[in-house]
Amino acid sequence: MTPAELPPGELDGRTVVVIDVLRATSSIVEALASGARSIYPVASVEDALRLAQALGRDDVLLCGERKCLPIDGFDLGNSPREFTPEKVSSKTLVMSTTNGTAAVSTAAAADRVLIASFLNIGAVAEELARSDQPPIILCAGRERQFALEDAVCAGELVRRLLEDGAHDWVLNDGALAARELTRRFGVDAEMFAITAAGQLIVDAGLGEDLAFCARHDRHSVVPVLRDRHLMLAPAA
Amino acid sequence: MTPAELPPGELDGRTVVVIDVLRATSSIVEALASGARSIYPVASVEDALRLAQALGRDDVLLCGERKCLPIDGFDLGNSPREFTPEKVSSKTLVMSTTNGTAAVSTAAAADRVLIASFLNIGAVAEELARSDQPPIILCAGRERQFALEDAVCAGELVRRLLEDGAHDWVLNDGALAARELTRRFGVDAEMFAITAAGQLIVDAGLGEDLAFCARHDRHSVVPVLRDRHLMLAPAA
Repeated sequence: MTPAELPPGELDGRTVVVIDVLRATSSIVEALASGARSIYPVASVEDALRLAQALGRDDVLLCGERKCLPIDGFDLGNSPREFTPEKVSSKTLVMSTTNGTAAVSTAAAADRVLIASFLNIGAVAEELARSDQPPIILCAGRERQFALEDAVCAGELVRRLLEDGAHDWVLNDGALAARELTRRFGVDAEMFAITAAGQLIVDAGLGEDLAFCARHDRHSVVPVLRDRHLMLAPAA
Repeated sequence: MTPAELPPGELDGRTVVVIDVLRATSSIVEALASGARSIYPVASVEDALRLAQALGRDDVLLCGERKCLPIDGFDLGNSPREFTPEKVSSKTLVMSTTNGTAAVSTAAAADRVLIASFLNIGAVAEELARSDQPPIILCAGRERQFALEDAVCAGELVRRLLEDGAHDWVLNDGALAARELTRRFGVDAEMFAITAAGQLIVDAGLGEDLAFCARHDRHSVVPVLRDRHLMLAPAA
């Protein structure tokens, strides 16, 4: 339910799926589907500026948010609607968000790190179903706390992973709970609107992002972490 | 949902309710209701032995568990069924458990720390309802991870706190989710049996603890933390 729950000693050989559906992993999926070459998730604004300098500032788009809003001097915010092919095609992105990029860093010790949101949930489920080993689904949460929208997305991923009956994976308490939360709260923008993260986004004047992030299976891409950056998995 | 989510800067003036329903907070409630004078929660076996020595080993009952089972050289385990008046009346207890005592330590920076389980959930709800300020409900979880039984107990506490309509407290995402999990999973020993903690307790041959911990409102006591030990709140 939160990055602090990831068992550090148990990541060897494992696949971790990171979910920060409002909005970092939705933006990552949208950006890569729109043709961005790769995305470097970084923790701080300073790290982002330093890395952009090292990579060549003119070749990089700086993006991210603090308190939902774009960062001064950055090229893009953290609204997935911004990551259009016109803006990001063939570009390298350096991204700093409050919760999502920290979750990716926490997961980086795993063998494989995938990025999921509703926008690509079917593609991620298909990719995970190819393995005999159950994935670890990591919700980014919000400021180290449980975030309902991430749990609901995780629960939908659990449902899709198990629906064909091909795997007899045992669900831990978090997965059992997430699946029920998905049944109860549904997987649409109305669910987002009752969450703390959703309310902050609406208050920031970015309410249209909720409907965008609630779109299911808009893309069939699976972002993966390679070294320190995210890019699309080669087609299977 | 887990101790790591407790916001350290926001505990001033707040009441934190700690829940580790399988089994530390159930045992704490049972022990104090059975007449134990006070309970010192400690992190490690070494801390427990050192404190027992300092308090006078003969005046203290050492209790707790590792991997569900009693600790070598300790007087009692962590099964609430053990904490009978015959065994604990007027005694001082030093208790070390895997998750519950760590959660109490994390909460200790708050103004007030209360202990809840199903055994005393009504009394805790009544006590909390006297305040105008919403409590923080802290689930101990299991090995730093989400534990379904704690969330379900938290959700039942939320339901009872709001049912009389006297408070218009805003629920955070965790409280919204917990309330729904309680509706979905129910609040009986069958719910416990599907959780990871419940299964470990059954596997350890202590399955009767599940039915015991599921008893609602068996006691009308509210354990509180005073300095470093837990005791009963004076009647209001």
